[in-house]
Amino acid sequence: MHGYSGDKQAYLTRLRRIEGQIRGLQRMVDEEAYCIDILTQVSAATRALQAVALGLLEDHIAHCVADAVKSGGPEAGEKVKEASAAIARLVRS
Amino acid sequence: MHGYSGDKQAYLTRLRRIEGQIRGLQRMVDEEAYCIDILTQVSAATRALQAVALGLLEDHIAHCVADAVKSGGPEAGEKVKEASAAIARLVRS
Amino acid sequence: MHGYSGDKQAYLTRLRRIEGQIRGLQRMVDEEAYCIDILTQVSAATRALQAVALGLLEDHIAHCVADAVKSGGPEAGEKVKEASAAIARLVRS
Amino acid sequence: MHGYSGDKQAYLTRLRRIEGQIRGLQRMVDEEAYCIDILTQVSAATRALQAVALGLLEDHIAHCVADAVKSGGPEAGEKVKEASAAIARLVRS
Repeated sequence: MHGYSGDKQAYLTRLRRIEGQIRGLQRMVDEEAYCIDILTQVSAATRALQAVALGLLEDHIAHCVADAVKSGGPEAGEKVKEASAAIARLVRS
Repeated sequence: MHGYSGDKQAYLTRLRRIEGQIRGLQRMVDEEAYCIDILTQVSAATRALQAVALGLLEDHIAHCVADAVKSGGPEAGEKVKEASAAIARLVRS
Repeated sequence: MHGYSGDKQAYLTRLRRIEGQIRGLQRMVDEEAYCIDILTQVSAATRALQAVALGLLEDHIAHCVADAVKSGGPEAGEKVKEASAAIARLVRS
Repeated sequence: MHGYSGDKQAYLTRLRRIEGQIRGLQRMVDEEAYCIDILTQVSAATRALQAVALGLLEDHIAHCVADAVKSGGPEAGEKVKEASAAIARLVRS
């Protein structure tokens, strides 16, 4: 079980929607849509992906990191470091 | 014809690969992979999408914006404004 | 006392350096440096600011959020929500 | 003369304001303000810096890149490449 397990179906629905957005981008390129219109949809798909990541991160901190903190020991510090590295990747992507 | 038309197949290949990454994310969620591993893949898919956007943007400036500049008139200024708004959306997504 | 209190001097040194970068940008604009060179320095200052934010966030999760989790009660959930909102602002800035 | 030269004073005013924001961050750290409040101000300063960059970029495309396009020759392609690399740095910072 992980932090997101309780919201699994919601995450799957959102990811399937993003998959549809990416296929929509393929159609736009295939039908030679105007560049700016494609760029607008790329930004929308990027924001949707970020929203999924922010949700997973909140669940992870609320459950996996919190559980490690409650049980104490070195694992807590490792979990915080690991979450911070994931936040950094997200900020820089 | 647009700036990216000459690279259409390359963009389609990249977008299909990103579609595969999104389906891979669905499998990870479905199989309850560790949150951090999923977040790592979300960052990778986000960067791949950004790279597509940066390519489209360069093609757009080099062709659509440049052509408008060459033909002169108010359209040039509009194209620059439009491209700058797309850059802003990309920076903030 | 906050998570970052132990590193206060280090954060102050980094922020003073960023202040110097911003003054450097003012000199470049004043001396009409080439746009791209100014943009390169703006990106460098932005990354330095982000690195300060990521450090503060890690300290906050490791101390303020962790302490709330240890003491239990509703405060823990509030702290996680608050940290997640700060992460979202950082990702979207 | 560069694209931004006509707006030089406006850019200098905005950069001085950002310098003030950075000094404000130093005061907050010095006075041990709450981490989340500092993070909120860091995001605000980051967005202000990005807005300066987006303005410089629009001016650069509208003038330096457009002038190179009008005069034709290889310089036009180089200017577009250079601007695209600056956009990529901005997107990834």
